[in-house]
Amino acid sequence: MKFVVIGGDAAGMSAASKAKRNDPAIDVVVLEQTSDVSYSACGMPYNIAEPERDMNDLVVRQAHVFRDKQGIDLRLGHKVERINRDRKTVSGLTPDGQLFEVSYDKLLIATGARPRMLNIPGEDLPGVKVLRSLEDGRLIKQFMAVHPVERALIVGAGYIGLEMAEALHERRVQVDICDVVSTLLPWLPSEMSDVVRNELEDKGVGLHLGMGTSQIEEFDSRSRVSLGDASLDVDLVLMGVGVVPNSEIASEAGLDLGPQHSIAVDKTLRTSDPDIFAAGDCADAFHIVTGQRVWIPLALRANRGGWAVADNVTGQHIELPGIAGSAVFKVLDMEVAHAGLSAAEAEQAGFDVVDEVIKSRSRAHGHPGNQDIYVHLTADKESGKLLGGDLVGKEGAAHRVDAVAVALHAGMTVEEFFQCDLAYAPPFSPVWDPLLTAANQLLKKV
Amino acid sequence: MKFVVIGGDAAGMSAASKAKRNDPAIDVVVLEQTSDVSYSACGMPYNIAEPERDMNDLVVRQAHVFRDKQGIDLRLGHKVERINRDRKTVSGLTPDGQLFEVSYDKLLIATGARPRMLNIPGEDLPGVKVLRSLEDGRLIKQFMAVHPVERALIVGAGYIGLEMAEALHERRVQVDICDVVSTLLPWLPSEMSDVVRNELEDKGVGLHLGMGTSQIEEFDSRSRVSLGDASLDVDLVLMGVGVVPNSEIASEAGLDLGPQHSIAVDKTLRTSDPDIFAAGDCADAFHIVTGQRVWIPLALRANRGGWAVADNVTGQHIELPGIAGSAVFKVLDMEVAHAGLSAAEAEQAGFDVVDEVIKSRSRAHGHPGNQDIYVHLTADKESGKLLGGDLVGKEGAAHRVDAVAVALHAGMTVEEFFQCDLAYAPPFSPVWDPLLTAANQLLKKV
Repeated sequence: MKFVVIGGDAAGMSAASKAKRNDPAIDVVVLEQTSDVSYSACGMPYNIAEPERDMNDLVVRQAHVFRDKQGIDLRLGHKVERINRDRKTVSGLTPDGQLFEVSYDKLLIATGARPRMLNIPGEDLPGVKVLRSLEDGRLIKQFMAVHPVERALIVGAGYIGLEMAEALHERRVQVDICDVVSTLLPWLPSEMSDVVRNELEDKGVGLHLGMGTSQIEEFDSRSRVSLGDASLDVDLVLMGVGVVPNSEIASEAGLDLGPQHSIAVDKTLRTSDPDIFAAGDCADAFHIVTGQRVWIPLALRANRGGWAVADNVTGQHIELPGIAGSAVFKVLDMEVAHAGLSAAEAEQAGFDVVDEVIKSRSRAHGHPGNQDIYVHLTADKESGKLLGGDLVGKEGAAHRVDAVAVALHAGMTVEEFFQCDLAYAPPFSPVWDPLLTAANQLLKKV
Repeated sequence: MKFVVIGGDAAGMSAASKAKRNDPAIDVVVLEQTSDVSYSACGMPYNIAEPERDMNDLVVRQAHVFRDKQGIDLRLGHKVERINRDRKTVSGLTPDGQLFEVSYDKLLIATGARPRMLNIPGEDLPGVKVLRSLEDGRLIKQFMAVHPVERALIVGAGYIGLEMAEALHERRVQVDICDVVSTLLPWLPSEMSDVVRNELEDKGVGLHLGMGTSQIEEFDSRSRVSLGDASLDVDLVLMGVGVVPNSEIASEAGLDLGPQHSIAVDKTLRTSDPDIFAAGDCADAFHIVTGQRVWIPLALRANRGGWAVADNVTGQHIELPGIAGSAVFKVLDMEVAHAGLSAAEAEQAGFDVVDEVIKSRSRAHGHPGNQDIYVHLTADKESGKLLGGDLVGKEGAAHRVDAVAVALHAGMTVEEFFQCDLAYAPPFSPVWDPLLTAANQLLKKV
């Protein structure tokens, strides 16, 4: 049995390692186009924040460990260009430009996603960067080591953009963020979005919302970026306008695609070809609230998907129920967390949406260090089912969202969620946890 | 309709307030034996930690607000001594020692619990304190303001004892703790118990486990406490050996009792007399994992119970599903959290118990500030159902337990819990949240 994996990042290496653990006799070949495998991509902003840290700190396991200790045939610099489903082979180019071809019994496409580009003039200038691969991270760090960066513009106010705003702020860079969307974090209720906006503005980050950029020019060895009718001169531009799935080889091989050109997979992570799996940021998933296909590329699902593929390749039958789209990020001193559907997504999915925002406190009445915490819960009026939740606050927002995620997986109603016996102590919450206060308020609407 | 409430703490005042909100026409009489209502009892150790803070900071709502703004007939210093179920009256003594009698249509017994005493010589000495009521808190603070307290002994290593260890440590008191039980936090697996023990010892707290005290003597204006064959001289002794429910008036009125002499109530919070409810620390509850009656007096249940009684008294029909026994506390820099059954409780309840302890990290690989975090999950081998969980760590333990609590309420299996899409970002967890790592390990045993 020969199991070939295209892509040596979270999904690919999780699958390769687990397949070997499950069945040491299996041949596992991993074809990775870059020279990096198994690193914490999400850790890059935090590494960039510290100039003295080595980017290679983020490598979880070295390539030689996969080869020597785990017996995985890991081939770096191997770019797969074509899948031949009839002959069951993949082919492409080696690091020195030679054609290679590898046959497979089972194939995993774990090609991930790449930064979406705006295709505007100047996007390829040396002061314009993206952050996706470890090499992208190295390039940003190297650039900052050589060029004094006093001011930076981040194009796109998504997770990566905001995490990079924090990282650059830590390095005492004047940070500006622009986004074509006029609302910051548009899935949040406005009062919660405003809290994050205030945090950014309080710390001196310039926000240019509802404002795209159509051109970047080199000017006086800096970058001059058009912003609406004006322009901004900065030392570094970071493009963070989202990612697109690397699904071209799958599409060209005739495999079915899912939302946003991701690769469609069933609950066993199989594509429309039963011998070909897809996992990680290139593949879609079922949303546990709607049951519908969605493309929400996140790290946990990539790892979980990789494991499930390995199990299914080695003779087990694993079905993944789906994802809640749970996500959390930190921006400056603020934690922002989400699980399930936003109110807008819930409406699109046909629910009779009711929602509620409450402001509570992170600790008990009178406890020192108390912070505001905001909770937003969304429900279906008809069934009473909880559909999603958001939290924003300086403490206690990040982990609380997991209680919402579990409730969504369980299909709980708001009433059932409200009845949950959450833990209380003064340093950690009021007696009625903010989640319960929100559920209680929302109950009045369902 | 006249609704009489015995006891003006969490359950009693929650019930009184909500009954008035539900139906302003109802007569609500609250009979409270002390002069304090509506305060954060759990906040007392943190208040005691700060000598300059006023104990009255912990009062959430003043008595006159209940009277003037909410129209509740709140009578302080009124000690109820007898319930006459035939005549539907309660009687007792006013602050000036006069007999009073009040009739009721519906009655709530919310008499709480009191510190368990050891009945040993010297327990009534002036340097020996308990911490239960706000007045107890004031007495400790007043004592410490007048007597220099350099060394203190806490008898009992429960939640209150450990929280007070932290509070006194903050005030630079040399703290010793003794407990007749030879294991610290005996419901925890030993490696997790040891983590808490090390934290106490690292910060200089003396632990005397497996060692009770049989006598306290006054000696040189300090307290000499027998500890096994030896003795310890301290300036302050805090007795924290648990609490007992104030159920005597219920018992004398012929109402059914539940576990540990708590007052037995059904899911509507009714006692064996349909016109009499009980809620708060004096009443029992159903455990959501076993369905059995348990007595686990905690603040959230008291508040929730009070609300449910108010709803049921004012014409709704509310049934509370039960409690998970979720609890969290902080001791020095360590968070300790629990939900559901301990392994020993699960065995007593007849489950085929499997459990697993894992050690993970509170943040992603390489993220600065990373701390160890320990997770213990317990399951039933036969059904695969999750039965309980514990977390210990310097960060991220407290709120994570709520995800376990929700899973217990939902009756999830370990497999279902493992499939939950928990949120990930490097400052908050590894990609595989410690809860999921623990679930994955436990899965191998079910």
